[in-house]
Order: sequence, then C-alpha cells, then structure tokens
Amino acid sequence: MEGVRILDKDKRFMQRALNLAEKARGMTSPNPMVGAVIVKNGRVISEDYHKKAGEPHAEALAIIKAGDKAKGSILYVTLEPCCHLDKRTPPCTKAIINSGIKKVFIAMKDPNPKVSGKGIEELRKHGIEVVSEILEDKAKKLNEAYIKYITTTIPFVVLKTAMTLDGKIATPEGQSKWITGEKARKIVHRMRGSVDAILTAVGTVKMDNPELTVRMAQGTKSPKRIVIDPNLEIPINYKIFNVPPETIVITRKQATGNRQKAIGQKRKMLIDKGIKIIEYDGERVDLKWLMKRLGETGIMSVMIEGGSSLNAYAFQDGIVDKVVFFIAPKIIGGKDSIPVIGGKAFRRLEDAFRVHDMKIKRVGDDLMIEGYVKSS
Amino acid sequence: MEGVRILDKDKRFMQRALNLAEKARGMTSPNPMVGAVIVKNGRVISEDYHKKAGEPHAEALAIIKAGDKAKGSILYVTLEPCCHLDKRTPPCTKAIINSGIKKVFIAMKDPNPKVSGKGIEELRKHGIEVVSEILEDKAKKLNEAYIKYITTTIPFVVLKTAMTLDGKIATPEGQSKWITGEKARKIVHRMRGSVDAILTAVGTVKMDNPELTVRMAQGTKSPKRIVIDPNLEIPINYKIFNVPPETIVITRKQATGNRQKAIGQKRKMLIDKGIKIIEYDGERVDLKWLMKRLGETGIMSVMIEGGSSLNAYAFQDGIVDKVVFFIAPKIIGGKDSIPVIGGKAFRRLEDAFRVHDMKIKRVGDDLMIEGYVKSS
Repeated sequence: MEGVRILDKDKRFMQRALNLAEKARGMTSPNPMVGAVIVKNGRVISEDYHKKAGEPHAEALAIIKAGDKAKGSILYVTLEPCCHLDKRTPPCTKAIINSGIKKVFIAMKDPNPKVSGKGIEELRKHGIEVVSEILEDKAKKLNEAYIKYITTTIPFVVLKTAMTLDGKIATPEGQSKWITGEKARKIVHRMRGSVDAILTAVGTVKMDNPELTVRMAQGTKSPKRIVIDPNLEIPINYKIFNVPPETIVITRKQATGNRQKAIGQKRKMLIDKGIKIIEYDGERVDLKWLMKRLGETGIMSVMIEGGSSLNAYAFQDGIVDKVVFFIAPKIIGGKDSIPVIGGKAFRRLEDAFRVHDMKIKRVGDDLMIEGYVKSS
Repeated sequence: MEGVRILDKDKRFMQRALNLAEKARGMTSPNPMVGAVIVKNGRVISEDYHKKAGEPHAEALAIIKAGDKAKGSILYVTLEPCCHLDKRTPPCTKAIINSGIKKVFIAMKDPNPKVSGKGIEELRKHGIEVVSEILEDKAKKLNEAYIKYITTTIPFVVLKTAMTLDGKIATPEGQSKWITGEKARKIVHRMRGSVDAILTAVGTVKMDNPELTVRMAQGTKSPKRIVIDPNLEIPINYKIFNVPPETIVITRKQATGNRQKAIGQKRKMLIDKGIKIIEYDGERVDLKWLMKRLGETGIMSVMIEGGSSLNAYAFQDGIVDKVVFFIAPKIIGGKDSIPVIGGKAFRRLEDAFRVHDMKIKRVGDDLMIEGYVKSS
C-alpha cells in the first residue's frame, strides 16, 4: 500500500476493470485475464480487456481508445503492466509512459518472474505515480490458475464432482444421471469453458459415453479432453473420439503380452483419427508426472471430471488445488453405492486433506461448495 | 388471518413470546413449548413460559403476574390456549376470560385434536378478540416434535451425523474421533438436551464406549438412551449401563440356540442393573414398530446417533423426519471408509429420499445442514 490512501472510487474503478477482465474467462490461456479502465476528471474515458493470447493487452487497447485524452489521466489495471520483450506484443509500460498517463493503480503484481515488480519500477522511473495493490484478493482469485502456472509450470487443478447429500456419485450399478439439477449442470459447462483441459478416465467414459464439451454455456470454447485409458478400452466410436475438440489419451506403455496386438491396432486407429497419445510407465499413471507433462504443452488449467477412483488418485498424488462439489439434497444410501472419493487409500482423520476458504452457494435445489486444498 | 392487519409491533411481541417459549427446550415433553407476553398501552406488563409438564401454562403464569393490570390488556401467546379439562392444570381459556384481557394474538392453533380451534372459539364466545395465526411458521418449527407426536403418537425423529466433505463418518478401521470441531459437538450436546431419547446401536457403542449424555451444554437434562443390541454384545461395564440416565436395550427375542444361556445371563445382569429391555421378533428390529412402541411410552422425540447401518435402516424403514448433517472440511477418501448412509439397500436416483427446506449454517470450520425428509 505504501502509505497511500485508497478511496472508494478507486476501488469502484478497479472493480470495473476486474469485471472487464472476467469477460475473457477461458479465452486468454496461457495469459492472465486483465482489464483496464482509464479515468480523467472522475469519468471513464476508455476501457478494455485482454481477449486472447497474441492479441493486444488490456492497457494497450484502452490507451489506443483514449488517444490524446490519455494525457494526465489515471489508469486502473488489474495486473502489473508488462515490461519484457520476449512475447508477441510490445511492453505495456512503454505505451503507458508514452501516453502521458500520470498515475496507475494496479490490483496485483505480476507473479511472472520476468515482470514481478519491474513493470512498476519502470513506470516510477518515468515519474508516473503507481499505487499497488488494490483489490488484490479479487485479482488473485481471478487469475488463480495463471498465478500457479506462471510460477510452477504445473497446471492449476480443479476437482469437480456432483454428489448426493450422503456423499455418493452413483448407485452400485453406476447410475449417476442426473444427481444435480439443470442450474448446477449449466455452471459445470461454464466451468469447462474456463479451463484448458478436462481430465477423465476410462470408467466414466465407458459408463456414460459423454461428450465432455461446453453445450449449456454460450460463447465459450470447449477445452481439450484428456482421458486415462490404460488398456485402450474405450470404443473407437465413442463421442470423445468423434466430436471436437482435441482428445489426448493417456495409456500404459505396452509390455509384450496377450492383448498386445489388439491394443497396437487400437492405438493405430486412434492415431489415424488424430488422437494424441501419451504413454506412461508402470501400473498406473502418476498424476503428478502427468500434470507436469501437460504443463509443458502449455496447459495452464485442468478440471477433473472423473469417477471415484480418479478423484481418489488425484488427492493421493497431491495434484488438487481446488474442489467444487455440487451437493444434491438427495439420499440414496447403500454401502456399495459409489463414494465421491474412493480408491484403496484413505487418510486418518488427523492427516485428512483440509479444504480451506470454503464458500457455499445455493444453485437451484443444490449446493455448490468451493474450497482450496493444499497440494502435497 | 381473517382480514386483520398485523402490525410490526405485534410480530415483535410474538417473537418475544417465541423466544421465551424456546427457553424450556427439551424440558416440556410431552407438552409443547409455549411463551406468553401481556401488553398494555404498548408496554409489556408481564411475561412467562411453560417450564415443564405438570407445571402451569405460560399464559396462566403471565396472567397471575399481571394481576389486576391484565384488565383491558393484550395477550400474545405462541400456541392456542387450552380449553380441555383432562390434564393436571386448569384450562387457560378460563383464566384469560376471568382476567379481563380484551384481545389475544395466537401464533398457531393447537394441533391437539382436543383443542384445535376450540380454545379460540371459547375466547370469542366470551367477547374476546382473537387474531390467529401470526408468525405461524416459526411457532410450528419450534414445536415440530410436539405437532407430529400429538397427531400421530409416533415420536419426531431427527437423524444427526458428523461426516467429512466426502461423506465418510469413519475410516475403514472405525476411527471417527473427531470429525467435526468443538462448536459442532457443543451443538450436538444441546440437541441431545432437546430430545426425549437418543437411539443408537451396538456397533457405535462397542467402538467408542460413549456416554451419550449432555455434558457440553449447561442446564439441560440428558435424554434416555435407546440402544439396539440384538445379541446383547455390549459389555456390562460400559458407560451407557453405568452412567445415568436411563438406558433401554432393544434386543432380539431369543430362540433356543448355542449362545442362549450366556445371553440369558447377560439379560438378567442388565435387568438387575435397572436396564429396561424391549424384545422384537425376527432378524432385525423394525424401526417403525420401535418408534410406535417408544411413542406409547410417552417419548415424543428421538435423535438417532448411530453408524452407517442404523442410518440406512432408519431411512429404509421411513422413520426419519429431519436430518442434521455436520460436515467437516476434510477429505479422507477410500472406498472402504464408512459412508454416512450404508446398508445393503440403496435407492435409484429417481427414488432418492429428498431433503427439503434445507438450511445451511457455518459452525466453526464445519457446516451444519438441516433439512426435512418425507417419511414413507
């Protein structure tokens, strides 16, 4: 804060910039969402947001729109302006300096080690007054995926599930359609649109033949589908192999064995269909290793939409950053009904994974519980 | 409402009467909780509440306190005043009529078929203006147990449980201490104090040797403990047999067989300790039958504090009126961890038990979810 008093109107303008940034949710990866508002004499003279990686940054767009009027104005921007050159767009600090803007409010520093305070320094060096940070918590939440990815190159992982009030995701026979209501399912589609990839596994795909695309939310792209299928059991005519967008299959490196030939043929068929295959060694895929691999391919955020076992392994392997549980006000009972987190392993109570910063919302008849998990 | 306009001040006085009634929670069974406030010239001149079955009613107490000043005053009472004679206290309608009270606000009609509108009639016949109902929903919630019991003679059943966010009540090894925090456990003690009996089963008692008394809430009585123990397996030195209050054991009628003699001895030891025994025919106790039996002995409300199986049977047998789920922000995982509702039976999603009128509250780090279930 550096001793500067932040007024309510400053918070309002920054909130406006945050709302603008939010408009591009799901579209900017691997870039952050950023919004910018330029104010002169207490009035907004221009505003914009970053639409897509490779396209101009929010502050650059707003400055162009403002033109000569930018002189002597105040800029509110949700992320520290960039100052580095190794990207497709020119550094924003330069544009700000050239525009004659006299003061800049910044919601949060850019966690990108290439920026991280240097943008602010650069502005100050040129006599521009900089106030940082303002509405920082909101800005950090907005770009939680970007923050993790830019500092670790590991994707931000959200585990989403829909369960009954008694913690079941399906009957013993696998019936799971539909546990939650339409409102919850719409939110799930919107969540899909906001991530780079969905991670699922053979069990879920074989049971429901899902499309795993964004259909109930307009104007958003569908993320990549990553499906763990150790023995390539998913039928070739299933939707995930035949409906866009891209599907990546994670499968076991085949040892010589009985089914080797059949699996080899299936693999060839998948590749012919344009399906990418990633192989792993060993009995089951190490999800930590997989996240690293996905991160290397530029995937910044992953949503897990799997079953009881995949959910369990995700926790076991310590890859979960955030959970979103939709809870329906229904009780189905039965010790053989499928629990939301299954698997062989369990934690003692004192070692349980803790969900913190929990938020609860009603979504139609259902509840939506969001929270964060400390990855191990 | 009968076309009468109810003012905010009337609601405030009735709320005050409801708060008074609430003070005796757990102490009035099989009577309802009732509060009364007498107002004259806009000011409360006396107020009281029903403390205990056999003791004077709320309105009678308030009228005595008001004395001559009651003349021309207004009475706010949370339940329709009684008019029948077959009980230990004189009818309140008579006291009201004699006091000179000119107007009576009533939160709800007495569902007791012996009253049910007759009290209101009686007052009106004597020229007293009666306004009914006001804050009826709150009054009905306050006496939800009484309402069910007086109309059906079956106890009102609350199923309480503490679980992790992934729907588990214990690890596969049975560890369940403690899932929730101290605040939640304090509320459970208060809930115990508000019911006539706690229902549990052999598994829970053998695992934890619990006392099942009210210790964390001051000034409330401990309810009876009812424990289902088909083969009398609970050791005689366990707390529930040695710490007050009363314990009732529900056990299988013994056929001739191997363990018959040992069980016969155990039964004798229990009876010698003053433990009451209720026997049932067949493989497992029909909980609907049991509730009927308990109702006949004057038990108006029961809280189930059992394990996975008892919870499942309670739903299966259709005895659950209300659920209170405490949910800890913890995840333990494991398909062999104990689910909150276990048992062999499960429901298909379309036949799931629906929980309605759900309320969610934060209790320390935990969530408390309350809701109602339509008993079948």
